[in-house]
Formats: sequence, structure tokens, C-alpha cells
Amino acid sequence: MQPLVELYEIAVEGPSLKDNTGDLDRLRRAIAERFSSGCEPTVPYSCMGRVAVNFRRAGFSGRAVVNLLPSGPELVDFIEPPSAHIVGMALDLGTTHLEAVLLELDSGKRLAEANCENSQIEFGADILSRIHYAAEPGGLDILHGAIIACVNKLAAELADRAGLLIEEIRALCVSGNTTMAHFFLNLDPYHLIREPYIPLVNMPDPCRAAELGLLIDRGAPVWVMPGVGSYFGGDLVSGVVASGLGRSDKVSMLIDVGTNAEVIVGNREWLIACAGAAGPALEGGVARMGMRAGPGAVERVEIDPDSGELSYRTIGGGKPRGICGSGIIDLVASLYLSRFIDIRGKFRPGRNSDRFVETGEGLAFVVAGGAETADGQPVLFGQVDLDAVMRSKAAMYSILTTLVNQVGIGFDELEHIYVAGAFGRHIAPRQAITLGMLPDLPLEVFKPIGNSSLAGAELVLLDGQARTECRELVKKITYLELNVNQEFMIRFSGSRFIPHTDHALFPSVPFFNED
Amino acid sequence: MQPLVELYEIAVEGPSLKDNTGDLDRLRRAIAERFSSGCEPTVPYSCMGRVAVNFRRAGFSGRAVVNLLPSGPELVDFIEPPSAHIVGMALDLGTTHLEAVLLELDSGKRLAEANCENSQIEFGADILSRIHYAAEPGGLDILHGAIIACVNKLAAELADRAGLLIEEIRALCVSGNTTMAHFFLNLDPYHLIREPYIPLVNMPDPCRAAELGLLIDRGAPVWVMPGVGSYFGGDLVSGVVASGLGRSDKVSMLIDVGTNAEVIVGNREWLIACAGAAGPALEGGVARMGMRAGPGAVERVEIDPDSGELSYRTIGGGKPRGICGSGIIDLVASLYLSRFIDIRGKFRPGRNSDRFVETGEGLAFVVAGGAETADGQPVLFGQVDLDAVMRSKAAMYSILTTLVNQVGIGFDELEHIYVAGAFGRHIAPRQAITLGMLPDLPLEVFKPIGNSSLAGAELVLLDGQARTECRELVKKITYLELNVNQEFMIRFSGSRFIPHTDHALFPSVPFFNED
Repeated sequence: MQPLVELYEIAVEGPSLKDNTGDLDRLRRAIAERFSSGCEPTVPYSCMGRVAVNFRRAGFSGRAVVNLLPSGPELVDFIEPPSAHIVGMALDLGTTHLEAVLLELDSGKRLAEANCENSQIEFGADILSRIHYAAEPGGLDILHGAIIACVNKLAAELADRAGLLIEEIRALCVSGNTTMAHFFLNLDPYHLIREPYIPLVNMPDPCRAAELGLLIDRGAPVWVMPGVGSYFGGDLVSGVVASGLGRSDKVSMLIDVGTNAEVIVGNREWLIACAGAAGPALEGGVARMGMRAGPGAVERVEIDPDSGELSYRTIGGGKPRGICGSGIIDLVASLYLSRFIDIRGKFRPGRNSDRFVETGEGLAFVVAGGAETADGQPVLFGQVDLDAVMRSKAAMYSILTTLVNQVGIGFDELEHIYVAGAFGRHIAPRQAITLGMLPDLPLEVFKPIGNSSLAGAELVLLDGQARTECRELVKKITYLELNVNQEFMIRFSGSRFIPHTDHALFPSVPFFNED
Repeated sequence: MQPLVELYEIAVEGPSLKDNTGDLDRLRRAIAERFSSGCEPTVPYSCMGRVAVNFRRAGFSGRAVVNLLPSGPELVDFIEPPSAHIVGMALDLGTTHLEAVLLELDSGKRLAEANCENSQIEFGADILSRIHYAAEPGGLDILHGAIIACVNKLAAELADRAGLLIEEIRALCVSGNTTMAHFFLNLDPYHLIREPYIPLVNMPDPCRAAELGLLIDRGAPVWVMPGVGSYFGGDLVSGVVASGLGRSDKVSMLIDVGTNAEVIVGNREWLIACAGAAGPALEGGVARMGMRAGPGAVERVEIDPDSGELSYRTIGGGKPRGICGSGIIDLVASLYLSRFIDIRGKFRPGRNSDRFVETGEGLAFVVAGGAETADGQPVLFGQVDLDAVMRSKAAMYSILTTLVNQVGIGFDELEHIYVAGAFGRHIAPRQAITLGMLPDLPLEVFKPIGNSSLAGAELVLLDGQARTECRELVKKITYLELNVNQEFMIRFSGSRFIPHTDHALFPSVPFFNED
């Protein structure tokens, strides 16, 4: 476990008339002796003055701060006891949300956590509108400035919670999708959404914090997780690292679902990835009542197939405010099993229930009546929402089948299916199988792995092998472009039924011979 | 011959749906194929955006600009034809004077030359007063700013003369003494003049122009010639590289004389250097009439030993304005041979001449009468000036003898004595031998090598072997500190006579049994 920034205890004899070695040269030589390579660290110009001054002030004895970069070690500071720990920040740079954690790099101890909304939302709610905004005069700089300000705010908050100064943060690892990585580095994202969808860079070299305007230590290395393509970014590579997918002999799969569904399958020998638009449905982004998983979100729904009685649970236990992705999947699976919807995902008003109401946009199903909710407005789920979920689940399953088929294996050959993010944390695989969204496998195959984008960033801060792995991974991953894939389109049609037109694929799901 | 910045002709297939490699990653890979190491260049953050944008704009075909640094190759730009040459600037960063040349790095062709006064003179005429100035609040920043402004001005001038823009200069190699290198890099020179006289850094890593506020291309590598100690800087290391001293099997010596005399002796196996205060006399910095070698300076003097008649030559041939170092050496040697001074360097007014005049400061010798000079004032040379020359020549010879003695060789074992700088260009070794300043060797042993500080900087720009050599040299050179050397003090006493107390050391010089 070699952290991204390492402290080397140094105590050398001071200079004398018999030894005219310069201060920095002396320090570099002493550090080189610690490396098996014997290689002297470089000293970036921005840190040259302070290293030399601090080394002398400390009486040539103290701790050298060395960034361990792929291009070689880099000496950035010299500190005196009692500072004994290097502190680093891991960051999941999401399109809507930023999540960060402060770590002690030698012990791995978590010192603080913080999160905030992505302040770029002001300039565009989604990636696409921000890319268009970036093309306007000054747009890219504004978006870059906004995200840097946001990261600075988070860093200050983390430092404050840990009782440190922001300058005491000496490393940053950022994990985000390819567009967010471009914004973070102030690189033009124009081509990301234009055929053939090529990033300006997939694997940027680490830079130093001050170069980006970050207020953490000026010599802090900023490691941006490498990505594979426009639609398979560093956040996914982080997930692969965090899951261990690329280190196992056995074949496993990793699924990350947001507005896009990103999937990768493979083992230590090979890795194939693809991504496709899943629609916002599975993030809770449907209709009026959809919401992110958070307090007041309906996250679990059950309907008694016989009585038609509905029960639900909200996150935090309070009155419902809306319904999140996992709640929606539960709901639709239950609606199917209790026969409120048919195999095409259409409401069956023939099944009498006082939960059906007519709205301006057609029939809707009442998940929670106005009397039960936080704001007095009923939580409704309409046919349009249902249609969105059907498209999303069809997309999801088609992506998975296209990918395994491309590889030439069956789902039953997968050791694990890792499910990342809020989606993985909250959904019940059983219900997702009922919908025909996930393959019909034993439930223990599915492993929720939480925010693996953040977890991968943490590993990179703590462990040299993770750093090597993520850079090798991106060279190993084959990316399958679904936008032009005929097979995907054909599979998509068959997946637009519950659970599927080919019923044999889902033996555990009851099939109803309908009306 | 591998220049510091190299152009690589690149033409790769553009991205497609089948190949999602990022633009920069694609370019880096193509460049790596050109290296025998197969190593991919790093891309510094400050150049990342422009490299990617320019590469795409050029249709993935053009020329990659790569800095070949000791830490590895660094990709800094991508340019389209017709730009076919990389242009770099070599700079001799002198305490009083800057000299620069603009080179085409592939051909070595000199495009322009320029020079100017060191604008730091405003804050202190000599090194010592500037080091004191640097210790005042804001002083170091002011001195750093002054020298950077000065270099920018020179660079603009060079570019203008070559019909280029200043941003088209893509490399800079700076050769200067250790104090000037510290000022240039904004490093505190405080300890350079305090025992044990240790620089903050002897071998700084190359940085990029923009980091120093230089207006040449932002990605231009700035190579500061490494030094050996406070009194043996990069200018001398440049001289060693330019002379070839460190590449020969035979032992030679290099002498560079300014206010300090710096001397190095050795061959490809070993090198020993020392430096000592020679006083300003040999630079023309004596008395009221001393001046740098320039138009109007008396540079040659002859006195007929029999008639006592004096003739002189000025630089440029015009009326005399003063006397420079080579003129002073000629003058004092002639005064000795014509017996106007004795072996202790004292005027002998007994030898009648109308050239002796009484001044407020004692006896003086008239080199040129008021009627002959540019400003109507006579060019006088007084006893105080003579005393200064005697101290300087004694220091010089003691340094040389202490050094060869330390090494255990005789002067006659030296293949060459390279004499650097204006001193080397202008003095006549014969006269210097007469004075007992240089050892009594056949005249062809002495080789003037001009501004070898600048010549070394040029070599570093043009030739990878010179870059390797200068970094290895500084590790190989043993520095002998004369400030605490007893032997030096003893030798100094014996050298305060013309030519020397030990007459056998100078068989070619007439010895007069005096009064």
C-alpha cells in the first residue's frame, strides 16, 4: 500500500566547507536512497523555493513530501514534526452531485465526509445542455470556474470538519464521467457528443493543485481517474478498481445506472464495456413525483396480489414527498404481479381499484394519497411514467444481453454482478428481475457496491497498485459502441415486455396469459 | 545531435467509432513509437488544452513539439506546416552584462544576436550588494522581476531581428554564475556568501517559461546550467562543456577571469575546480580610468625599453576613453620590461620620464595625455592601480599553482590552458607570463575560447550529449575551497613579485638585479 503522497523521514548532515552540495541536491540524493530505483525525485518549479527554505530551516532533518506519480517521484515540500500524516481528498465528481471524503493516507482513516450539489446545474441541468453552454463565448471558463469553486468549497468543508486548514490537504483524486473530467480540466467537451464521440483526453497526466486554481496545497497532485471514452469515464474505471472486477480469474459484471447505464464485463484477462441511454426513470427522474433517493422518498413498495392493498416505506420513515428509483422498480414489479398492469406495461383499469384516478395526462395510480404526504399532494404514478420505466428497463436488459452475447457467454457464467451507486444500494434485485430489467439469476449473484466512483478514488489515494491498475485497465478495456449496434436495437424490441417476449429467459417470474 | 526541443512529424488516422482513443492519448502513443524506449511523453497541464485542440484542428497530421528533458519527454504543442524549425535562445546571464543568441535548433544556424546591461545593476553594482538588497523586504522579488524583464526584452529583440514573434522562441538555456541563477529562479541567495557558502540548489530541474513569467512560448523548457557551488556556477560548467575539457584523455585547464578567477583542471576521468577573488583589476575595473573592453578602451600598450617611448591601440581605433584589462596587463608588463617599475610593482621615478606625474593620490603614469583622449582628460595609471594589479596577478598565479599542486602535476603536463571570456579574447599570454600571472609555457598552450558560458548554453540547446555531460560533470567536479586553504596564502606571498620570488619558475622572463 503506497499512498499517492508519501512522507520520507530524512536526517542528513548539514553542509560544510568540505561538501558543497546544494541544499536541494542534498535532499534529493537522500530521498533517492530510499527508492529501489535509486532515482532522484524532480522538484517542480512552483515548489522549489519552499522545499529548499523549509529543509534548511528544519536543520536538514524532518520529513520530505513526495508525490509518487507515474512519471516518477516529485518532491514538493519539507515539513517538520509533529506533522506526521498526509491528508488527501477523494472526490466523486457527479453531474448533479459531488461526494467527497478526507483520508489520512498512511492509515486510510476517514477524517471527514462532505457532499454538495454540482454548482454547474445553474448553467444546465444535464450534461448535454452544459456542453452546449460551454460552446458559447466564455462558457467553458465559466463552467470550469464553477466546478473548481465547488471543489474548493467542499475541500474547505472537509478540512474544517477534520480540524485542518485547506492547505493541509496534500492530494486529490477526482473520479467523474468524461464530460465532468473535461470541465474540471477546462478542456473543450465539444466532440464528446458528436460522432465519433472522442474525448480530448482519456488519461490526463496528474497536475498540481495550483495549476487548476485549487486552494489545497499548491504541490498537491491532482489525479483525474482515466476514462475509456466519452460514455465510459473515470467514474466507471473507479468502479472496476473498487469492485476488483479486473483482478479476478472469474468473469463478473459491473452495472452503473444513472441517466446512462454503463456496463462492463470481464476478468483479469479481458474487459468489454458499453453504455447506453437508460433514460432518467431509474434515477427517480420520471414524471412529477420522481426524486433522488433521499429523506421522504418512497423506496419500497408492496402490493398484496389478492387484496390489492399497497404498503410502502420512505427513506427516513417520514411522510412521503415523492418516489425514487428503487421505489419505482418495486412499484412497477408489484403492479405487474398484482395485475394492475399488463405485460406491455399498460394499466389495466379493468382490475378495479380506487387507486386509479384520471388526470389531465391520462390514467394514474395513487401511490400515496394527499392525506398521507408531506405537502398534501398525492404521489401519483401515471401511464407516461410507466412508459418511461418500460423504455429504461428494456434498454437496460438489451445492453446487458448485447454485451454478454458479444463476449459469447451466458449470464449464468457470471460470478458476480456488481451494482454500483444509489441504484445498487436501494433496488431489490428480485423486483428488477420481475420487471425483466436484470437477468433471472440467484439473488446472491448481485452485489451492491455503493458509490464505487468515490471508493475507486480513495483506493488511488491509498494504494500504488490501484494507480497502476487504473492506468492499465483503460488500455485493456474494449469499448462497444451501442449507438450504431444493430443487435442492440433488435434486442430492445423484445425487452419491451414484462419480463420479456422470450419467457424462458425468466423462469422465476410468473407469466400471465392475458385477456 | 538531439536538440532540447524536437519536432516529430505525425500523421495518424483520425478517430472513428471503432477506435475511441482520446485525441491526446492517440498523439502520445504515436510519439512513443518514435522513441526507442517506447515511453509516452507526459503532457503538462498548462499545454494540455492547446495540444489537443491543435492536433484535432490540424486533422491529426502535423508536427508534435516535444521537450526532451532528463525526466523524460514532454509534449507541449502541435503545429501545422509550414513551421519547420524550432527556435531556441541561449543566454549568458552575467552579473553586469547579458549576451544572447537565437538558434535554429535542427540546423544550429544562428539567427540573431543581442546583448544588454543587467538591469539589476540599478539595485547593486556587484553581486554582494545585490545579495544584501535581496534580504530587504521585497528585495528578492524585485531583483527576480528585473532580471526576468531583462531577459524578456532580449528575447523580444532577438525575435524581432529574426523576423519572428517572441512566442515562437520555444526553448531557453541560461548560463550564469550561481547567484545570478538564484535570482533568475527567485531563490534566496542569502547563504551563498555565508560560510559554508552553500547554494539552495546546484542542479535545478528544467521548468517551463510561463512559470517564470517569461514571454517566450509558455511550454518552452528553461534549462538553467547546473553549477558546482556558490563560487563555481553554471557559466563555468558551460565553459567546461564548450572547451571539451571533460571529454579529453589529456589533462587541460580552463581559466575564467572576472572579479573572481575560476579555474578547473582535469580530463575525462577527474576534474578539480577552485575559485578565488582576483579583484576587479583584470576586468578593467581598476581606478578611475579602468573600463570594460569596448570602443575607446586602450587594449594594447607597448613601451620601447630603450627609448621609453609608448605606443597604444584602442578598441575601434578612436581616441582613448580609458584602459581595459588587456591594456592594463600589457602596460604593467611593459613598465616592468622598460624598468619603469621594479619587481615589487612600485614605480621607479629614478628612471626619468615626462610620463610620471604627481596626483593627489601619489605618483601616476600617463598612458595618454589629455590632448589625445576623447574627453580631454589624460588616461592615468597610478600606484594604487598598480598595487591592485599586483594583488590580482598574485591571486591568479597562486590559484593556478595551488590547484595543480593539489592534483600533483606540473604545469608542463597540461595539454591546453583554455582562457575564457573577454579576458581570454583580449590579453596577450606573453605579457601575462611576463607579469607572472600565467605560467611560463609555450604560447600555443593558451587557447582563448571567447564567451564559453554562452557557447555551452548553445550546445545544450542543440545536443543531447551536452545536456547529459553537464549534468554528469557537476557530480564529477571536486571543488577546492580556497578561502580556508593555508597553501594558497603562502603561495600568494611569493607571487607578489614580478614575475615571482622563485625566478626559476619563469625562465623566459628577464630578471633585473635591482638598485
